[in-house]
Amino acid sequence: MALARGYAATDASKPLQPFTFERREPREDDVVISIKYSGICHSDIHQARNEWGNSMFPMVPGHEIAGIVTAVGSKVSKFKVGDRVGVGCFVDSCTTCASRDVDLEQYMPGLVATYNGVEADGKTPTQGGYSDHIVVKEGYVLSIPEHLPFEATAPLLCAGITLYSPLRNWGAGPGKKVAIVGMGGLGHMGVKLAHAMGADVTVLSQSLSKKEDGLKLGADHYYATSDAETFKTLAGTFDLILCTVSAEIDWNAYLGLLKVDGTLVLLGVPEHPVPVHAFSLIPGRRSIAGSMIGSIKETQEMLDFCGEHNIVSEIELIRMDQVNEAYERVTKSDVRYRFVIDMATL
Amino acid sequence: MALARGYAATDASKPLQPFTFERREPREDDVVISIKYSGICHSDIHQARNEWGNSMFPMVPGHEIAGIVTAVGSKVSKFKVGDRVGVGCFVDSCTTCASRDVDLEQYMPGLVATYNGVEADGKTPTQGGYSDHIVVKEGYVLSIPEHLPFEATAPLLCAGITLYSPLRNWGAGPGKKVAIVGMGGLGHMGVKLAHAMGADVTVLSQSLSKKEDGLKLGADHYYATSDAETFKTLAGTFDLILCTVSAEIDWNAYLGLLKVDGTLVLLGVPEHPVPVHAFSLIPGRRSIAGSMIGSIKETQEMLDFCGEHNIVSEIELIRMDQVNEAYERVTKSDVRYRFVIDMATL
Repeated sequence: MALARGYAATDASKPLQPFTFERREPREDDVVISIKYSGICHSDIHQARNEWGNSMFPMVPGHEIAGIVTAVGSKVSKFKVGDRVGVGCFVDSCTTCASRDVDLEQYMPGLVATYNGVEADGKTPTQGGYSDHIVVKEGYVLSIPEHLPFEATAPLLCAGITLYSPLRNWGAGPGKKVAIVGMGGLGHMGVKLAHAMGADVTVLSQSLSKKEDGLKLGADHYYATSDAETFKTLAGTFDLILCTVSAEIDWNAYLGLLKVDGTLVLLGVPEHPVPVHAFSLIPGRRSIAGSMIGSIKETQEMLDFCGEHNIVSEIELIRMDQVNEAYERVTKSDVRYRFVIDMATL
Repeated sequence: MALARGYAATDASKPLQPFTFERREPREDDVVISIKYSGICHSDIHQARNEWGNSMFPMVPGHEIAGIVTAVGSKVSKFKVGDRVGVGCFVDSCTTCASRDVDLEQYMPGLVATYNGVEADGKTPTQGGYSDHIVVKEGYVLSIPEHLPFEATAPLLCAGITLYSPLRNWGAGPGKKVAIVGMGGLGHMGVKLAHAMGADVTVLSQSLSKKEDGLKLGADHYYATSDAETFKTLAGTFDLILCTVSAEIDWNAYLGLLKVDGTLVLLGVPEHPVPVHAFSLIPGRRSIAGSMIGSIKETQEMLDFCGEHNIVSEIELIRMDQVNEAYERVTKSDVRYRFVIDMATL
């Protein structure tokens, strides 16, 4: 075992604080990664505060990890010391079920979350990216394109793939009208990715306060959802709407913005169920669906796509000791557009 | 104008009664049909009782029409006197919009309902199949295969296409597991059609009272939804669930029965919105969608498919003067499985 340093939540009500814990020695198929940058995802906050009711403490959050390989196991062939790599939301999965064939392991039982999870041995808790290093099986390590600004790639590992996967699955591209609901950490990645795929991109945000940014990042149109006119003007417009907000908005109103056969995809999780009327779906053969991150294969495809199109996240780089303040600001949507912790400040 | 005889609702609270009204003389593209059989759809009852709040009286219901051609306009080429034909839920649609290209005119504005609608002139009310004859544009008349028992084909025009279209759209066929929720007028058609398409078919009904029928009509499995074990046993089983009931059931529970990428399709309309939890959709990339009848092209395809596979509805043939009694029985689900009015008894 090797000692690791990080920041942990020790229970749901306390701020994160310095924490020392053990990481395993690398096995033959493991990659040891010195973590350079760690993004702050809203789900880090939900879990550190036990808002989903499934938290295990002490917990080192972080599943938007960008780092440098410092050692590899004897059977590792894809990575070598010095490589730029990333780790996303999971570090192991069921390898015997059909999942690997269909390349959808993120939806299968047996998934091991990067933190607040339990390893395949059924007992060892996983700890995430707010730490100096991590040891991860080769199959769950991603290559990060060398020419991208490194610190701004960390959020691609969760925010990036969370938007990329549904955009690909529901066919965003030339001739398609895509709306992104919410202009935050997830939403701004959706704008960049959908634009790069060639879709006509509209941001639907509560206000027009981030309109200038939205248009600069690739949006073709920008509307305020606080204006009731928006829902009349845009009725029947979109092939695909990606909803990144977890506030309890009226999905029926957004369904009215879809074309025939259009789909509203939920990426954020409201605390309570949202009433849906069958009449919002039936008369246009519309759908509501959900989507969750992406497979390892698709995450690598996303990183390569970002490399090709020079896409990274818009970030605010912070020190490790600013993490609790950053959590407060994220809950107030006061970040443009993703906090990334500089792990050199740990 | 020609006089037509039928049965009409004169207001929302009165039983249907004999009614005489006018039908137009055939235009050059019209087909005149002597109605032989008229199915009773639950939506006839909703509309005769103004339960959807959009009823116009007097109203002659009926959009499951089977009859014989008695005259054709000068430009009609597809039909001749003596042909067996059907008319379904609509008798005109927008012909200038993109709808006709994409063959989805049932979802487009400009659709003219067979009854309780207004013709393209913006003023003439449409009247339905509980009548001696109807005059319909050639493009909205369907051919009914000659060898099928005629009286049992009428329900194909609504119940049949309502199930056929989503089965085709979501790929029911060999290797696919399809569940039909509700074993009524719609549901029993779903069982027959999905079975004929080669899918593995499960009925999910409140009780096992119709199990024998279900298996006889083509179901491979039959479960009671009143039994909580059903939802454990079948978790993650289905590619496609077609929900034919309009009762307010817990869609979240049914979403749990879907495989990854599975779809729950709503065909019935509950009176109130149903609460949906994002967590029911996100972890398996599941969808809830709606579907509504089918296009004219697809309805003809369905009738041809039924001809090929000898599929008709299971019916109870009644006299015209039994219609009000039949309405009562439909609201109690006391029919196996569709009432059809013998229009010779008008």
